[in-house]
Amino acid sequence: MTIQFDPAPSDKAQLEGYGVFTPRFDDHGLVTAIVTDHRDGELLMVAHMNSEALALTIETGIAHYYSRSRAKIWKKGETSGNLQTVVELLTDCDQDAVWLKVQVAGHDASCHTGRRSCFYRAVELVDGEAKVRIVDEHRHFDPDAIYSDKGTD
Amino acid sequence: MTIQFDPAPSDKAQLEGYGVFTPRFDDHGLVTAIVTDHRDGELLMVAHMNSEALALTIETGIAHYYSRSRAKIWKKGETSGNLQTVVELLTDCDQDAVWLKVQVAGHDASCHTGRRSCFYRAVELVDGEAKVRIVDEHRHFDPDAIYSDKGTD
Repeated sequence: MTIQFDPAPSDKAQLEGYGVFTPRFDDHGLVTAIVTDHRDGELLMVAHMNSEALALTIETGIAHYYSRSRAKIWKKGETSGNLQTVVELLTDCDQDAVWLKVQVAGHDASCHTGRRSCFYRAVELVDGEAKVRIVDEHRHFDPDAIYSDKGTD
Repeated sequence: MTIQFDPAPSDKAQLEGYGVFTPRFDDHGLVTAIVTDHRDGELLMVAHMNSEALALTIETGIAHYYSRSRAKIWKKGETSGNLQTVVELLTDCDQDAVWLKVQVAGHDASCHTGRRSCFYRAVELVDGEAKVRIVDEHRHFDPDAIYSDKGTD
């Protein structure tokens, strides 16, 4: 890792302006990463990055995240082949989130369930109760055949 | 608030399946909310919701968030008029994030800087340093005229 990030400025106008990228990591040392398909803008997944994952992503152009459950850097698609090449990277007004527009290799799937997107369920109010309904049943790969540890890639 | 959320099941298949919506709030009691424009899928903002904000959003169809800086429920657009009507609400595989496809009222802007999207800057590697460059200069409203307290709506 060669990129180092400076601490975020306390000055709001500076944080919202142009110049040096100063990501604001939370108390767990993470920023939120929003991942969309560069072709049609479909939201594929939400993940987190620590400074190392963010630096690796910027330097290599391949999406790296930080797995909170496994407490380690996670090169997305290393197991499944569904690597994400970053076409464009943006950040938001307070620099605590990044938006990756990516091209997905392999099965064109970003969810460990084999679906294109992790957001395959709608939330709906039914008789006063919030329910989830599956709106995308299509699995681009068989997770059992890909992940020996039933992991999340 | 009438909707109550059940605790998330420990069974992964159940968490990833259909039925009752059981959001997994983090150690601050929050889920991540990704907000896109229902017309063209543009990513507008990322925010957080506690159980009350999530329940209010589902019940009223108007986006409510939880402001971490102000430590209170935040009805988006209450000051600026840029209310967000939820056209569709989805959740991800592990139910710790929600995706709101919204219709924005008022100035058609969701960023407190007056821009349509909070993601108005690209992150780029320039001579080994990560820089931000403004890619959307268009302000749909004048923040100084809207927010007396220079808040974030």
